[in-house]
Amino acid sequence: MTAMTSALFERVHIVGTGLLGASIGLALAERGVSATLEDASPSALALAVDYGAGVARTAEDSEPDLVVVAVPPDVAGAVVVGALERFSGATVVDVTSVKANIYEAVDRSGADPSRFVGTHPMAGRERGGAVSARSDLFTARPWVLCEGQPARVAALEAFVRSLGAMPLQMSSLEHDVSVALMSHTPQILSSLMAARLAGASPEALSLAGAGIRDVTRIAASDPALWIQILGANAGAIRAHLAGVKTDLDRLIEALSQLQSPGAQSVLAGVLHAGNDGVSQLPGKHGVSTKFASLVVVIDDSPGELARLLTQLGDWGVNLEDLRLEHSPGANVGFVDLTLTRDVVGSVEEKLTTGGWRIAGETA
Amino acid sequence: MTAMTSALFERVHIVGTGLLGASIGLALAERGVSATLEDASPSALALAVDYGAGVARTAEDSEPDLVVVAVPPDVAGAVVVGALERFSGATVVDVTSVKANIYEAVDRSGADPSRFVGTHPMAGRERGGAVSARSDLFTARPWVLCEGQPARVAALEAFVRSLGAMPLQMSSLEHDVSVALMSHTPQILSSLMAARLAGASPEALSLAGAGIRDVTRIAASDPALWIQILGANAGAIRAHLAGVKTDLDRLIEALSQLQSPGAQSVLAGVLHAGNDGVSQLPGKHGVSTKFASLVVVIDDSPGELARLLTQLGDWGVNLEDLRLEHSPGANVGFVDLTLTRDVVGSVEEKLTTGGWRIAGETA
Repeated sequence: MTAMTSALFERVHIVGTGLLGASIGLALAERGVSATLEDASPSALALAVDYGAGVARTAEDSEPDLVVVAVPPDVAGAVVVGALERFSGATVVDVTSVKANIYEAVDRSGADPSRFVGTHPMAGRERGGAVSARSDLFTARPWVLCEGQPARVAALEAFVRSLGAMPLQMSSLEHDVSVALMSHTPQILSSLMAARLAGASPEALSLAGAGIRDVTRIAASDPALWIQILGANAGAIRAHLAGVKTDLDRLIEALSQLQSPGAQSVLAGVLHAGNDGVSQLPGKHGVSTKFASLVVVIDDSPGELARLLTQLGDWGVNLEDLRLEHSPGANVGFVDLTLTRDVVGSVEEKLTTGGWRIAGETA
Repeated sequence: MTAMTSALFERVHIVGTGLLGASIGLALAERGVSATLEDASPSALALAVDYGAGVARTAEDSEPDLVVVAVPPDVAGAVVVGALERFSGATVVDVTSVKANIYEAVDRSGADPSRFVGTHPMAGRERGGAVSARSDLFTARPWVLCEGQPARVAALEAFVRSLGAMPLQMSSLEHDVSVALMSHTPQILSSLMAARLAGASPEALSLAGAGIRDVTRIAASDPALWIQILGANAGAIRAHLAGVKTDLDRLIEALSQLQSPGAQSVLAGVLHAGNDGVSQLPGKHGVSTKFASLVVVIDDSPGELARLLTQLGDWGVNLEDLRLEHSPGANVGFVDLTLTRDVVGSVEEKLTTGGWRIAGETA
């Protein structure tokens, strides 16, 4: 891997040493490539250097062959253009969450567009800053590569693969519409739901179960960053929100006249469409007919969960998913295990025989 | 517990042997109380009897002193009224997700309203049927008790506590508004989001991360049941959805004219309100300044997670929350540990020293 990375891009320069920039630097360092770094903030730069993400770039350094722009969305376009102008031979990429606006900024600028490739690593939860930087932040995460000169895109594909990521080619337009659906719209719906909790009574809040907790988890995201992301991808997000609004309006109308013809079928339509939609999500977490879940009650003490999982490990059971749920005020927790359907019966039997309490099973 | 349960209600009759009814029967059986059972479906009744949830009620059985109505929401009111009429000395409760409509049905009927108490155990995920019934389904779960004669409510409080639940008193109105906010509105927003996934390209779907999976998880709920719940609580849900609609409309408008004065502050307002809202959720799962999270990379093989948790248990570390995340196509998983802020630093250091890979930390 080291050989491949250094062969492709020998001199990597990283502009912006936040979570993503510093993590790329650390990943390169681990593979024997010392990146040069710069950041608008001298203290952020110093921190990244201390962390081992690379060395501060000086006037004596030779030209980079790859420049990675890892700055906030609202300045990324300008910084990419600046990098194309400053480093006349380099491939320049950015790593922000929205892509078409960066391509537009490059096209408008008069800088050489042939050396630019927009990219987006699906990693880092978009919060944390340089102190959260990790060399393995990209391990097994998708990393989208958008349009560009084929040779550069191919080199970048090998580059991101060498950092542990899974390259995924997609046009900038397709990317932006896709993340509007898969990331930005969920963020908005989560925030809209959580916003409703303002002024809720302590009694109401005490009824919080796993459902509302899951729906509102990402509502805790950083507003400053998300204002930029939403603004940069406004068009694509609006299209999805318009669909949500149509469904929501019909639902509100149906709920206000439940006896009128068709009202029930509006409710049914939204609920069934939700069933169908969630079943489309790929991977282990997707709802699927292949999996079933088993809820085990455990004492809320250190080691209990480990004891359960050691047991499962000893039986050779591989978990598809695991979710830990605590009840407020209770001394027990619920462990929701997702297992393949073919093993769930025997696992339940073994657990029961082993003295574990099963609180439920869902098909 | 057995003594307390039997002293309070010696003869319990359960109408409806689905998940909740059968689970109550099993819990009573475990405590030495044999309930009588009935169900509109002879096969469902036979199954519950086979399970040990109680015995089928016959004409020879003496009058019950407690009747638990555990039938679907759309027939619960009529069945409660019927039970009040058939069993003239019994306390009658229901266990459906919406309460005011049941009280209204009782008031309208001319049956004796003084013996009715509406209740709602927050358990059972509202799916599964009798085959998922468990005697410990209610362990540590809130069980709401609404208005009724004080002596009956007090007896029911002891009754649900004896089944392992945590009684919570609340008026039926307060309950319905609360579950509209904490359960029904999240269900709708989750379904609305998941409904957007219809027709999404495989490329878009491959970008699915933890965020959209969390937001859409409960979109997999049973439509048949939820149509009844939403219909029964339409007024309270509409009030919350109206708030969502106002925010959504303003957001769509802001996204369509980002340069106009105030547009940015609309985006900021929704995102900040979301931050504030999610921070209100109580308990271990709530986002709180007391907690921080640590993401550990593990091999996706049986026993790996157990090894990690055994390690943490050996160090006396109690997890506040745990979330397992798999990347599609990857041979590693990510374990997101939520820890109290005061231990997160030392745990991270120990894990790193112990050879574990840390993929991220968030404050």
